[in-house]
Amino acid sequence: MKNLTRRDAIKLASVGAVAAMQTVSSGAAGSSHDPVPVWEVFELALKGASTGNPFTEVRLSATFSLGHRSVEVDGFYDGEGIYKVRFMPDAVGAWSFRLSSSLANLDGQEGGFEALPPLAGAHGPVRVQNTHHFAYADGAPFFPFGTTCYAWMHQSETLQQQTLAALRNSPFNKLRMCVFPKSYEYNHNEPDFYPFERSATGVNDYTRFNPAFFRHIEQRIGDLRAAGIEADLILFHPYDRWGFAAMPPEADDRYLRYLLARLSAYRNIWWSMANEYDLMRAKSTQDFDRLFHIVEEKDAYRHLRSIHYSVTMYDYAKPWVTHASLQSSDFAAAPGYLTAWKKPVCYDEVMYEGNLNRRWGNLSGDEMTRRFWLGVVSGCYVTHGETYLDPEQPFDESASPPLFWSQGGPLRGSSPLQIAFLRKLVEESVKGDRQTVRTGLVPAPNPYYLNAAVYEEDGKQANTILYYFDFHQPIWYEFPLPEGSFRAEWIDPLAMTVTPQAGRFSGKAKMRLPGKPFQALRFRAVGGG
Amino acid sequence: MKNLTRRDAIKLASVGAVAAMQTVSSGAAGSSHDPVPVWEVFELALKGASTGNPFTEVRLSATFSLGHRSVEVDGFYDGEGIYKVRFMPDAVGAWSFRLSSSLANLDGQEGGFEALPPLAGAHGPVRVQNTHHFAYADGAPFFPFGTTCYAWMHQSETLQQQTLAALRNSPFNKLRMCVFPKSYEYNHNEPDFYPFERSATGVNDYTRFNPAFFRHIEQRIGDLRAAGIEADLILFHPYDRWGFAAMPPEADDRYLRYLLARLSAYRNIWWSMANEYDLMRAKSTQDFDRLFHIVEEKDAYRHLRSIHYSVTMYDYAKPWVTHASLQSSDFAAAPGYLTAWKKPVCYDEVMYEGNLNRRWGNLSGDEMTRRFWLGVVSGCYVTHGETYLDPEQPFDESASPPLFWSQGGPLRGSSPLQIAFLRKLVEESVKGDRQTVRTGLVPAPNPYYLNAAVYEEDGKQANTILYYFDFHQPIWYEFPLPEGSFRAEWIDPLAMTVTPQAGRFSGKAKMRLPGKPFQALRFRAVGGG
Repeated sequence: MKNLTRRDAIKLASVGAVAAMQTVSSGAAGSSHDPVPVWEVFELALKGASTGNPFTEVRLSATFSLGHRSVEVDGFYDGEGIYKVRFMPDAVGAWSFRLSSSLANLDGQEGGFEALPPLAGAHGPVRVQNTHHFAYADGAPFFPFGTTCYAWMHQSETLQQQTLAALRNSPFNKLRMCVFPKSYEYNHNEPDFYPFERSATGVNDYTRFNPAFFRHIEQRIGDLRAAGIEADLILFHPYDRWGFAAMPPEADDRYLRYLLARLSAYRNIWWSMANEYDLMRAKSTQDFDRLFHIVEEKDAYRHLRSIHYSVTMYDYAKPWVTHASLQSSDFAAAPGYLTAWKKPVCYDEVMYEGNLNRRWGNLSGDEMTRRFWLGVVSGCYVTHGETYLDPEQPFDESASPPLFWSQGGPLRGSSPLQIAFLRKLVEESVKGDRQTVRTGLVPAPNPYYLNAAVYEEDGKQANTILYYFDFHQPIWYEFPLPEGSFRAEWIDPLAMTVTPQAGRFSGKAKMRLPGKPFQALRFRAVGGG
Repeated sequence: MKNLTRRDAIKLASVGAVAAMQTVSSGAAGSSHDPVPVWEVFELALKGASTGNPFTEVRLSATFSLGHRSVEVDGFYDGEGIYKVRFMPDAVGAWSFRLSSSLANLDGQEGGFEALPPLAGAHGPVRVQNTHHFAYADGAPFFPFGTTCYAWMHQSETLQQQTLAALRNSPFNKLRMCVFPKSYEYNHNEPDFYPFERSATGVNDYTRFNPAFFRHIEQRIGDLRAAGIEADLILFHPYDRWGFAAMPPEADDRYLRYLLARLSAYRNIWWSMANEYDLMRAKSTQDFDRLFHIVEEKDAYRHLRSIHYSVTMYDYAKPWVTHASLQSSDFAAAPGYLTAWKKPVCYDEVMYEGNLNRRWGNLSGDEMTRRFWLGVVSGCYVTHGETYLDPEQPFDESASPPLFWSQGGPLRGSSPLQIAFLRKLVEESVKGDRQTVRTGLVPAPNPYYLNAAVYEEDGKQANTILYYFDFHQPIWYEFPLPEGSFRAEWIDPLAMTVTPQAGRFSGKAKMRLPGKPFQALRFRAVGGG
């Protein structure tokens, strides 16, 4: 197995910056463990038999209980005679657990731990909230402003650290990323780790996982969690030369269950069943339905679940899909999608800012920013990506710099700063105002005249209205305001300026406007958030 | 009848700059008339009875013959005891005619005239050519670059002359314009002429036409003809306060037959059955089908026929429709339309450049230009419109300057110059090259990568390829060129520059590109047109 020597370099303790690791050297679960804050990971490491094939032959699960509740999670074999069980408590209190296993020395073991209040900045997993929007488990709104680094975990450690640094300094709070390595245009490197034991001639043993591969992924998901970034983890994809896109169904299922046992306890996980599922010729839609069901059954925390397509849309109305994950920039269709599916709609691939020799990879930065605005005022969420070649280099794939879209590395484009500006506009009206559950923007009732969206509030009058004029350049407009008195601000989304307007506006408010394209306008209720 | 006093101001002789007028004082057709060039108007003016209602009670037609061909046209009553017959010869030679009428003094009259070769600049009516394109009757290609002045004929004479001056200095060679006056936002003036006799209390007598109204329209159509501009004449529209949008069917039919008798002989007429036909509540789709059939039957020259919608598209596959006339800017749908209908597709309303308080009337100039490019590389044709308020004036409809879109007047926007640049690019490759019938652009076979179109040539290799990059900014691209050797030019559609590139390109041509948005590229075969 290639690069196995690097395995030792991955420190187990770094599996997540705030993960609580419980290692039991005797293999007994015991009854006394260090406390773990809510939404962090409680982990048991247990010694057990390493004979035969522990990945397929050993059964291990644990039932965690608090008061009347109990939650069952699968354990997994982590190699070298170590079995692990991970659990993410969602409530403060004294949790107890009981193991069930085909290994006699583990079966029936009991123990417990104290779940403490959450750490500062930990809000729990993201859920669907208010039909079309998202919120953390603690009720704090979550507005996805995502980006894409499909294969960043399969690059050099130096590059991965550059990616993390770029992400920490970016507006992005969700990352689309693949479990498996990627083989595609501009993506030709061999990964450091393979998910399965693999012979020198490239034959995978789908019955034996490579724990180092998964520990590495866990480390990166933990890094993202520490940075406040949701990992929109892509479980299957078609860009493959190793065999992972065309495994037998039983290998798919086993891989998925193993991954779920290892990763579900990370609060920042979203499950994306596939990228461009419809390009995976070895799988049918029914195969993906079956894989969805495995996630439904085995993820005790019910993380968000979706799937991404190339041409043929998956039926997002299916009940096991929590939100739509579109490859589209048809924002005019958004109101129809929201109405039909009654779920959040993420435009997860709207092409990428860059200068590539591909239509999907050469949007101008202004156009990427425009797509974010169009998405936001459509009541949806948009995902960024970036593909910039160095104009000073020969246009040869081997001489290409890392493309953020796939390898990660530094961000080079102009849109991230503009997207940060938009994110701030969207978020600032809910800051410190939990009572009014303003979870997201909804499209204004009459999109005929101008693109607009209002903040949704449960049973209350909207107190923020955001207009985006796109390539329209009205010199005046009569705004149909809801009841109340409003302040107005002219916004330049590209120059990133906010210009407060004098006066108060109410009723049918006739207002002079800049008369130039790509401007926006925000009304905020006087006395409102 | 209001403004009847102005009737005398309209000189009969000005009915068209190059119209040949034949007035027969005796009412006899006679046998000796001045010669008329092909595609100009031969007109007989005949004295007859003015008792009763000559508009409804007198039948008059003429059969024009040349060799084995004969063409029957209706005459019409022009008021004050004068009946007229108009005919546009389409072939050189000695044409003879014979009248048929319910008036005994006209019935059976015979005569003739000599049709001379066409005048310089006269190419005949525009026809569909090569499935998706247009050409004049003499075979010269016609690329529509249209604009819109719906109600320009119903403004002051000064303003009409300003409109004509603006059109003559513009790139526009087709004008969408209404027969009836218009009542709508920013359109409140009373017309100088009404089409029917109308009482002081505003009751129309649909059985009696007002010849002054029609003579005025003829004068304007003749002005456009002299300027080389096709009159895309809108026969019905819903923006009405006078009753013309809701006449009884027999009045619609009579009006239409009268109009056809008067106007069909103008070579620059296109019939647009309606603007936003689906907003005309008093008419059904079947009514429009019937009206189409009247045009088919009564227009001896078979001018182009279409109809324009607001929301519900008319079925452009119907055999009496010669081309589609869309209200849409969905150019991605163009290949499907071209394939489905096998007719030319005109995007006749893509919103307007302006600064109005309406979504349809406040596109930036760059966006209007962009829509022309997107249409052209989709193998279609696009129509301009303009709606600019004066930013120094109060935003009040009564203080509004003329809006070109409806009243005409001067053009104020930035797109016409850029559209002129595009028109030149499209036209110059066919100049002086009649043999190769390059009638228009067709979408390139693989629009996945970049927007592109190639010139269509009957059974020949394309020799011009036009790429438009839109908001894409590739820094290099491998162009799949057809056989042969090509020159390349970088084109900036907004700055209106053409930058020839060194070298010759062939096969899979890898080329560095500017790496900025809204650029274009043209390949032209070495030795080609």
